[in-house]
Amino acid sequence: MSKDDRLSKAQKPSQEALRLHPFYRGKYQTVPKAAIRSFQDFAIWYSPGVAAPCMDIYANPEKVYEHTAKGNTIAVVSDGTRVLGLGDIGPEAALPVMEGKSMLFKYLGGVNAVPICLKTKDPEEIISAVKWLQPAFGGINLEDIAQPKCFDILDRLRAECEIPVWHDDQQGTAAVLLAGFINALKLVGKDIGNVKVAMVGAGAANIRTVHLLIAAGVDPAKIVLCDSKGTLHKGRTDLEGAPGPKWGMCQLTNGDGIQGGIAEAMAGADVVIGCSQPGPGVILPEWVRGMASDPIVFACANPVPEIWPWDAEEAGAAVVATGRSDFANQINNSLGFPAIFRGALDVRATTITDEMCIAAARELAAVAEEKGLRPDYIVPTMDEWEVYPREAAAVGMAAIQQGVARRTATREELLAEAENIIRESRALTTMMMDQGFIAMPPEPDDQE
Amino acid sequence: MSKDDRLSKAQKPSQEALRLHPFYRGKYQTVPKAAIRSFQDFAIWYSPGVAAPCMDIYANPEKVYEHTAKGNTIAVVSDGTRVLGLGDIGPEAALPVMEGKSMLFKYLGGVNAVPICLKTKDPEEIISAVKWLQPAFGGINLEDIAQPKCFDILDRLRAECEIPVWHDDQQGTAAVLLAGFINALKLVGKDIGNVKVAMVGAGAANIRTVHLLIAAGVDPAKIVLCDSKGTLHKGRTDLEGAPGPKWGMCQLTNGDGIQGGIAEAMAGADVVIGCSQPGPGVILPEWVRGMASDPIVFACANPVPEIWPWDAEEAGAAVVATGRSDFANQINNSLGFPAIFRGALDVRATTITDEMCIAAARELAAVAEEKGLRPDYIVPTMDEWEVYPREAAAVGMAAIQQGVARRTATREELLAEAENIIRESRALTTMMMDQGFIAMPPEPDDQE
Repeated sequence: MSKDDRLSKAQKPSQEALRLHPFYRGKYQTVPKAAIRSFQDFAIWYSPGVAAPCMDIYANPEKVYEHTAKGNTIAVVSDGTRVLGLGDIGPEAALPVMEGKSMLFKYLGGVNAVPICLKTKDPEEIISAVKWLQPAFGGINLEDIAQPKCFDILDRLRAECEIPVWHDDQQGTAAVLLAGFINALKLVGKDIGNVKVAMVGAGAANIRTVHLLIAAGVDPAKIVLCDSKGTLHKGRTDLEGAPGPKWGMCQLTNGDGIQGGIAEAMAGADVVIGCSQPGPGVILPEWVRGMASDPIVFACANPVPEIWPWDAEEAGAAVVATGRSDFANQINNSLGFPAIFRGALDVRATTITDEMCIAAARELAAVAEEKGLRPDYIVPTMDEWEVYPREAAAVGMAAIQQGVARRTATREELLAEAENIIRESRALTTMMMDQGFIAMPPEPDDQE
Repeated sequence: MSKDDRLSKAQKPSQEALRLHPFYRGKYQTVPKAAIRSFQDFAIWYSPGVAAPCMDIYANPEKVYEHTAKGNTIAVVSDGTRVLGLGDIGPEAALPVMEGKSMLFKYLGGVNAVPICLKTKDPEEIISAVKWLQPAFGGINLEDIAQPKCFDILDRLRAECEIPVWHDDQQGTAAVLLAGFINALKLVGKDIGNVKVAMVGAGAANIRTVHLLIAAGVDPAKIVLCDSKGTLHKGRTDLEGAPGPKWGMCQLTNGDGIQGGIAEAMAGADVVIGCSQPGPGVILPEWVRGMASDPIVFACANPVPEIWPWDAEEAGAAVVATGRSDFANQINNSLGFPAIFRGALDVRATTITDEMCIAAARELAAVAEEKGLRPDYIVPTMDEWEVYPREAAAVGMAAIQQGVARRTATREELLAEAENIIRESRALTTMMMDQGFIAMPPEPDDQE
């Protein structure tokens, strides 16, 4: 395929999205979950019968998990201040992303998910809103909230909420990246304890990735982060006292005190991880040429990677991964969040810890390895659906082992439960399409 | 049937509700609304394709109605401070009611509805929460919020929100009551301009009902409201300056200045409307005996009416209506809210006016009259599904006539659209039951 063909192919999803979103007017909907045998059943599901479960919950608050959908329902919450790589486009414009996320949560993880786009950017107000939303939800997925406020919002909500709150752009991306990182190193035969890692962007995803990489065995001194002003090092006094974790990163990473920009951070690095701004042109081919042998390139900016994969490969990259579903090696949160929430909800976890994310990453990596790693296959693809129940069970077991689960079960039980609920969710979607409740999209020509 | 049998039958829904809620663990769920032909489609529905509709909305905010489910999705919002007739049982215990409501919204009106139970009772915080929730929703249904704060919350939100906000316990109950009221008077051959109306309870429903009754032709002077301290009249100086609309009602109604309690208000009245506290024993049979000829009794407290229907009939009531679905003449909000929101959403109304509610009431009354009024049939039942599209079209036309619609259409178009979407919603539920995606509930014996 020529570069022009590839570029044209890369633009196709945008054209289709613009054409097909108005055809469906929404990517999620609510439907009944309990039987309506006749209208008499409304005396059970609504007044007067419903008063009995209400009073049961009033007397025993934890029974809300038995009488309602709370235990399998989450909110996908955004203020629209950092949507994909598009920046602060506001809560209305963020809604298509949050609806897509809700669709993925249900289809891939069997998790009911409701998009909530908040009409406020104020961190305290976002924190209040999420705390007030808790009763009807078993968990909260924060999404596309700008940094540095996202760090404090997540920390506060994790401390102050009774249900798990996570920020997918931090924990979700980091978990899937870690899975790809582990397998890419296996492919090129490098030891995790010795690799040098350049990180382009010091935002939500990369900061949390640093923590997971270190927990997985990477030497902090061999990690070099770059923000828009250059590498993070102990001399970056402009960051001292600034909100967010950057100054801490200056102390923790970059043992050699490398100064400069992305070029300098990448010189001699074994791996570059970009989670920064849409490319191409953010990572240049000549910088890839300056990396160590068999360089590994994660170019995860959305919607366009920091460097096009074909350019990275031409520059010698041994493994290239992006965030896009239309290229090989998609380091996509969709491999993480549906299963990680599935696992957390199934054991009624009070929080989602880094260890639960690492358990997910290791299971994700293991599934791909069992099938045989290749330069264009370092993580499973979304259609290998067995990965989701396996990840969910691993996450649930990690929660139980850490003592953050309110329900205990064996791995086999968790696996079987997750398989059932995910299989049913996918089968329902298929059946709705087969039976015409979800129409097939018209061909482009049909719409003239 | 003996009174004992009737009592036992009346308690059956509670027992079934307690047994079956844990079987289903939820009465609503989220499912995909757009086709997933293959995993490649996620490049359209999510990254990278989704960026295109996001940017289209960013450039043209009203396009959120084209690219997302906003236009057919509402939030059912409660703080749990006045749930059914159970009082302040809190947001978690309120969730079974809000889920039931969501189920009804979808099944009867084709409206996607998400239960939101807020963990705050503060009026200002509730107002803030609802305003922040707006971007993802096309409307807000407030539910089971205590008075007097509910009046101010509704007024403020109607003034400050861009989408329709209504309080079902006010407007919804009043609309359906008005329909029953119109038809009950027809049955007993009384003229709306001459009837005396006693109202038990001066809460959300009855206050709004007063407004609708007056708009429909009742003489304000002939309405007598009772709160817990007795009738409202110009001498009730305890109410002067109190929050809420009661003092205004003291000026507007009760032209004869009747003092006393429910007994005095009901003496000689043609109609009594109870929307107060759970009975029985709130309205006594001897008070019904003291009403005018052919007395009409609306005993709408939930979950147990102010007087059992059989007791009211024994005391001479010509027509008895309650809020319960297991008795005849259910004055149930479920006859109103699904269709009223359907109509409001279909013309993208900016608000739901009293006139739109009255249009719904008149259409509801007309459907029952066309079928033939009887003492046990003054309003349609929920299974006469043609009532919903007709109501929706009437509401949409009223919105267009009042200039609060952002989209125009003919009555025939609105009727056809509403019929399609409601038919599809019901067919989907049936199909999910037929195909095993919603299990049939086990018989009581099966659960041992």
